[in-house]
Amino acid sequence: METLTVNLGTRSYPIYIGENLLESGLLANHLSGSAVLVVTNETVAPLYLETLLAGIPSRVRCSHLLLPDGESHKTLATAATILDALVEDGFGRDACLVALGGGVVGDITGFAAACFQRGIDFVQVPTTLLAQVDASVGGKTGVNHIGGKNLIGAFHQPRCVLADIRTLGTLSRREYRAGLAEVIKYGLVRDAAFLNWLEARQEELLDHNHHTLTYLVRRCCEIKAEIVARDETEQGLRMILNFGHTFGHAIENAAGYGRWLHGEAVAVGMLMACDLSVRLGQLDKSVLERIRRLLEALGLPVRPPPENPERIRSIMRSDKKVLGDKLRFVLLSAPGTAFVSDDVPAATLGALLADYFTQA
Amino acid sequence: METLTVNLGTRSYPIYIGENLLESGLLANHLSGSAVLVVTNETVAPLYLETLLAGIPSRVRCSHLLLPDGESHKTLATAATILDALVEDGFGRDACLVALGGGVVGDITGFAAACFQRGIDFVQVPTTLLAQVDASVGGKTGVNHIGGKNLIGAFHQPRCVLADIRTLGTLSRREYRAGLAEVIKYGLVRDAAFLNWLEARQEELLDHNHHTLTYLVRRCCEIKAEIVARDETEQGLRMILNFGHTFGHAIENAAGYGRWLHGEAVAVGMLMACDLSVRLGQLDKSVLERIRRLLEALGLPVRPPPENPERIRSIMRSDKKVLGDKLRFVLLSAPGTAFVSDDVPAATLGALLADYFTQA
Repeated sequence: METLTVNLGTRSYPIYIGENLLESGLLANHLSGSAVLVVTNETVAPLYLETLLAGIPSRVRCSHLLLPDGESHKTLATAATILDALVEDGFGRDACLVALGGGVVGDITGFAAACFQRGIDFVQVPTTLLAQVDASVGGKTGVNHIGGKNLIGAFHQPRCVLADIRTLGTLSRREYRAGLAEVIKYGLVRDAAFLNWLEARQEELLDHNHHTLTYLVRRCCEIKAEIVARDETEQGLRMILNFGHTFGHAIENAAGYGRWLHGEAVAVGMLMACDLSVRLGQLDKSVLERIRRLLEALGLPVRPPPENPERIRSIMRSDKKVLGDKLRFVLLSAPGTAFVSDDVPAATLGALLADYFTQA
Repeated sequence: METLTVNLGTRSYPIYIGENLLESGLLANHLSGSAVLVVTNETVAPLYLETLLAGIPSRVRCSHLLLPDGESHKTLATAATILDALVEDGFGRDACLVALGGGVVGDITGFAAACFQRGIDFVQVPTTLLAQVDASVGGKTGVNHIGGKNLIGAFHQPRCVLADIRTLGTLSRREYRAGLAEVIKYGLVRDAAFLNWLEARQEELLDHNHHTLTYLVRRCCEIKAEIVARDETEQGLRMILNFGHTFGHAIENAAGYGRWLHGEAVAVGMLMACDLSVRLGQLDKSVLERIRRLLEALGLPVRPPPENPERIRSIMRSDKKVLGDKLRFVLLSAPGTAFVSDDVPAATLGALLADYFTQA
């Protein structure tokens, strides 16, 4: 087992990465209160809920709640069902929520923990690749609004993260591959050597090799922990982790939440952000082709769904990353080196959107 | 005009207290972003909205939203209407919310500001006595759940507080008097001299004397600012500000939100907390009688509405101040000196509830 720490002063917490962590007793060490509500979904519960519950000591009052599966349910209404359950079970300020599942479960549960009684403890037990390398670390919690992704939320750090690599074995191929998009993102924005490592291990990645996966999750969490420790609430540096997300969020929203997986939309979004960087003279064109090849090799999409470019532009305007009237983009100057720009010329953006988005 | 500061490091902010502050240009100094949404209610809007809007510089895009008036509307659903308005108006991360109204408007608006895009700026412009001396200062935001008051919320500090004493002139007598309950609370838990001062000025208080009111608001805000600076998230000291609130919240909830004003319920709750302190041998009985006389002189209730004591006990159990299975009470050992206890014997509490609550 590997242990990393997210350094945030009194709110620091460990990330445990390894196999068979669910039944290891680690969770019990992080339950200081007298009551636990485990939140999971219909898909994950049959696989791992019983194992997780077996690790909760009998001194702790415990109940569980199953959410419907999927991004389309990542809403304020679903978060409210968690709050209702906490109230109905008579849970107090010392209760702890445990999020067992992917990014959707983690984001909603974390937000409910942030709001209940102005903030209670929660623990992340991510069971998807995307959640293990990204969503479960760093305290971003929230739900979608019909007007945009994650428009409602809070920064609320978990007490610990338990990333059990074994749970990745039950992911669908599609979900697993979608998770690889966020993995590639870390290489692109922060670690060129890691990007090389990924390119050299395409077969092991597609084969779910456990050694490869353990290193991969650890390296992603290391990068994320370092960035979050330096900029918890995204005043500057942390923005680079949104690479590909302005386009990606617009694709998810336009397609209807849940039709495109977050990672799939981010894959196309990253390619578009590379392309935009090339068009602005910031990035060598060869990098764009290199990324396209890597995405294709890992089975990730490189074209967005058919859509009116004007609709995409309008959705992007309501995205969180808009500041005043300016769209903000994360761009690359080289593999491993990202920067934030809010003065992309409208004509350049328009040409890019027109090239990628066409009416059905 | 008087200016106080709530000292919270990078999140420090000023409280301005005086007359005619709405049109003073102070608000404009605290609007750093490009867009403002003023949130108020149907009662306050005709009185002060126009004056406030006139003070917002033309460089700032501005819209406003009217909430229904009353504690019964302090719900997640109402908070969601603010979030909807922000999205519909295309407001971004640099938008600022302005809460113009009493505690309900301030609590809901502050919570919406905490949740929109994981936290945007907001300004408190309290127009009731209760909001000026208590609710607008200290960053407690939130909404009620059917299971209890303020069960959903966040700590989110405003950018500034503008307490315009003149707005107290349009309060109903009932609302004004309810605000005096929280004023008395500060004397009881933290400042015996202030309690003496209040007792000696009952006539000026009932007459809305402006000099008396300015000092009163300033002194209450000073006490609150000092306590919040020392314990922002209520780990210890700040709990004493909940004096009378465990009983008070149960009364509000049992009566149905909005039937009893918060301050009215707190008045009875404080009397019950004094009585409990006496029964536990912590407080001299003469203080209980003294507080009863002061509450009565200021037109505040000293008896709760008819209710089954068991129902009250059950509601108290779901209150935020419950830790595990223990009810937590703020008690007095003398005027100006409060302490927290979570080992009140069930029999003592039962006898107290039976004495105060009777079936209709």
